[in-house]
Amino acid sequence: MSYFDAASAAPLHPVARQALQASLDEGWADPARLYREGRRARLLLDAAREAAAEAVGCRPDELVFNSSGTRAVHSGVAGALAGRRRVGRHLIVSAVEHSSVLHSAEVFETEGGTVTRVAVDRTGTVAPASYAEALRPDTALACLQSANHEVGTEQPVAAVADVCRAAGVPLLVDAAQSLGWGRVAGDWSLLTASAHKWGGPSGVGLLVVRKGVRFAPQGPTDERESGRAAGFENLPAIVAAAASLRAVRAEAAEEAVRLRELTDRIRVRVPELVGDVEVVGDPVRRLPGIVTFSCLYVDGETLLHELDRAGFSVSSGSSCTSSTLTPSHVLRAMGVLSEGNVRVSLPLGTPAEDVDRFLEVLPGTVSAVRDKLGAPVSAPATAVRAESLVVDSLGKRCPIPVIELAKVIGDVPVGGTVRVLSDDEAARLDIPAWCEMRGQEYVGEEPADHGSAYVVRRLS
Amino acid sequence: MSYFDAASAAPLHPVARQALQASLDEGWADPARLYREGRRARLLLDAAREAAAEAVGCRPDELVFNSSGTRAVHSGVAGALAGRRRVGRHLIVSAVEHSSVLHSAEVFETEGGTVTRVAVDRTGTVAPASYAEALRPDTALACLQSANHEVGTEQPVAAVADVCRAAGVPLLVDAAQSLGWGRVAGDWSLLTASAHKWGGPSGVGLLVVRKGVRFAPQGPTDERESGRAAGFENLPAIVAAAASLRAVRAEAAEEAVRLRELTDRIRVRVPELVGDVEVVGDPVRRLPGIVTFSCLYVDGETLLHELDRAGFSVSSGSSCTSSTLTPSHVLRAMGVLSEGNVRVSLPLGTPAEDVDRFLEVLPGTVSAVRDKLGAPVSAPATAVRAESLVVDSLGKRCPIPVIELAKVIGDVPVGGTVRVLSDDEAARLDIPAWCEMRGQEYVGEEPADHGSAYVVRRLS
Repeated sequence: MSYFDAASAAPLHPVARQALQASLDEGWADPARLYREGRRARLLLDAAREAAAEAVGCRPDELVFNSSGTRAVHSGVAGALAGRRRVGRHLIVSAVEHSSVLHSAEVFETEGGTVTRVAVDRTGTVAPASYAEALRPDTALACLQSANHEVGTEQPVAAVADVCRAAGVPLLVDAAQSLGWGRVAGDWSLLTASAHKWGGPSGVGLLVVRKGVRFAPQGPTDERESGRAAGFENLPAIVAAAASLRAVRAEAAEEAVRLRELTDRIRVRVPELVGDVEVVGDPVRRLPGIVTFSCLYVDGETLLHELDRAGFSVSSGSSCTSSTLTPSHVLRAMGVLSEGNVRVSLPLGTPAEDVDRFLEVLPGTVSAVRDKLGAPVSAPATAVRAESLVVDSLGKRCPIPVIELAKVIGDVPVGGTVRVLSDDEAARLDIPAWCEMRGQEYVGEEPADHGSAYVVRRLS
Repeated sequence: MSYFDAASAAPLHPVARQALQASLDEGWADPARLYREGRRARLLLDAAREAAAEAVGCRPDELVFNSSGTRAVHSGVAGALAGRRRVGRHLIVSAVEHSSVLHSAEVFETEGGTVTRVAVDRTGTVAPASYAEALRPDTALACLQSANHEVGTEQPVAAVADVCRAAGVPLLVDAAQSLGWGRVAGDWSLLTASAHKWGGPSGVGLLVVRKGVRFAPQGPTDERESGRAAGFENLPAIVAAAASLRAVRAEAAEEAVRLRELTDRIRVRVPELVGDVEVVGDPVRRLPGIVTFSCLYVDGETLLHELDRAGFSVSSGSSCTSSTLTPSHVLRAMGVLSEGNVRVSLPLGTPAEDVDRFLEVLPGTVSAVRDKLGAPVSAPATAVRAESLVVDSLGKRCPIPVIELAKVIGDVPVGGTVRVLSDDEAARLDIPAWCEMRGQEYVGEEPADHGSAYVVRRLS
């Protein structure tokens, strides 16, 4: 069994387990009480805050614990926006933020706010210049992740923080994916993180608000966590979160080198072993443990299922693996293929043999899925029949529309076009991505009776 | 060491500990994922939901887990109010609700809503007729605790639920203090609870929304917990919460009898052992484990400190034990004495000897505190001096104003008055309460140059 989905949730670190068990005895009482059990709980809470602040690189009184990374983002964004309500009602986010940031932005829009979503390039990276362009006199807050959760691309946080600071706008950094690896560089204003991403327990998020940043907590509050996280503190878990962050950091430098070598192996070998694959995300500026690739003519859900049967737990941004049947917003923003998408995110300590075994198993698994779907094995070589063809893929789901396109592209002459009729949301992303991969021209999308017509011109 | 503050946080139940430890291995993965670790987590989550729903007496799909009882109340109240926005913007709460309900009500007021706070009698009980009177055509929601957290008084939830249902208004029941003892009777619409009150871990709250109740979750949501509790599920703790609720329920009937006998012992013995004491809360309709009393002429903070030194951890609703220097809103709403207030809340399994030892220690501890403050030992018997006297207690904190009143009341003739000048918030509650206890007449409060003048007429 190889669990390769640490970016969703990391297995509990042994130090987290020890700290949790120890503090179940010492840390269950109310830290607001003055009797000895309460004072003991308060000491544990204070020590955890000190340790977490040291790891973040902030003052202890700038850091509060709450119940999850999502909660930290929700209350961090809402509090920062409310704190600068007088400045204006404009928010900047990148197009590839975690859903908790994007959901916060959507709520802000329903309340009358305006949101600018900064685009990314094909590696998933934002340009600091794009943030500079997006800034307005009424910008209340900008948000940028430290690194992307789906493709591992690291963002230029320090440069964006400088751009924001020059404009007097606070930057909130969602550091959920990177905090275990190190402090977030740069002069950011707010930071959020989630313990279960670094091997801490679930149920603990961090929200850091630098001194001097205007912040007005929203919703009902109480006297806990400086009025920024209501409800009884989840103390044993907080203690375990802080202890494991420290432990993970101690291993980080060495483990980063090792995991980076393993994910590099995947980046290099997968395209060699499996045809029609696109490895996505920045090849250099990226997290050590994450690598993501997409396989043409493959149904992501079936692929995940087959990999699970073979003993590998991975996740996917393919449309067929999401409840909404839309591809991952990250892959969409990057403009890369979403079909047959696989994210491998290695937990600390992943043995090299597990990765090698994955590379052994993957090619056969992908071929089996492609065979089942009748995917084209190589470029088709049938006689040219017509200047333009129409492929009716209505009612068919990813990856069928792309498979049918690939099957007929050889049937039109160079310069001829294929119109793919599809009502599958994934086709909007995957047909242009296929063109990019195959060196064909994506002409555009046209409205059709049902769904859309995606027009492709054969160039080679 | 005797921990007598289970109403704040109960020590972890052994079953909770076992379940937590077991599910640290099995339940750390994302239950939304399809690979085996995710499926295993999903099974645990589903089983915990079934068990908790069975204990509550609701359908599993009516119950979601979130991060605390406070969070459950905040999102339950906000969601129910928003779901019935079209009906109106009126909310009913009792005056003795937990602060999480009252804070929700305050936020609702700042957003333009109207709140009716239903008064309680001297035992802390609401009258169903008061809810009936408070209901209006634009009432969106009513809230009532199942039992009070400070004095243990049980509320007539079933009767109030009937009154509300007849008016078509949903009733939200905060069952934080009672759920470990049994299901909440009656036809309520929403229910909240907190695992660490019944011996489960911290970090887990319950929110139940009956089918058919209009509910619109507020703030950013995600796909977790039916869109009613955003953020990664705190799964090991959820498993432990459900398992311990079941375990606690299995012991409840027997333990209720035992603890009720122990708290009855305190209710009876404390007034016999300590002079000038008021035991508060309903003597019959009450939780088994909670008993609260107030000692005249005693500074609550010092008393708690001395009891802690003697090995007893209790809490207090006295003003000097709160960060705001105001007495507990519960004691205030009941109109009972707040000075020298002590809440004893016994955890499951409290040995009878611990209670006996408490009764041995208490009298000496109270006398020592009274001696230090120069409190009157018995009714003063000095010669009558004047028809009316003024006591200047400005700048002095509870219990000094009451002590000074008690010292001079014998100096005026029957029918004469004492005016106590005080700027201590607690005096507003404690001087009338003293009059009630001593059979003197509280004439009223008058504005003064600084603070207020509290006028008392000697009747005996």
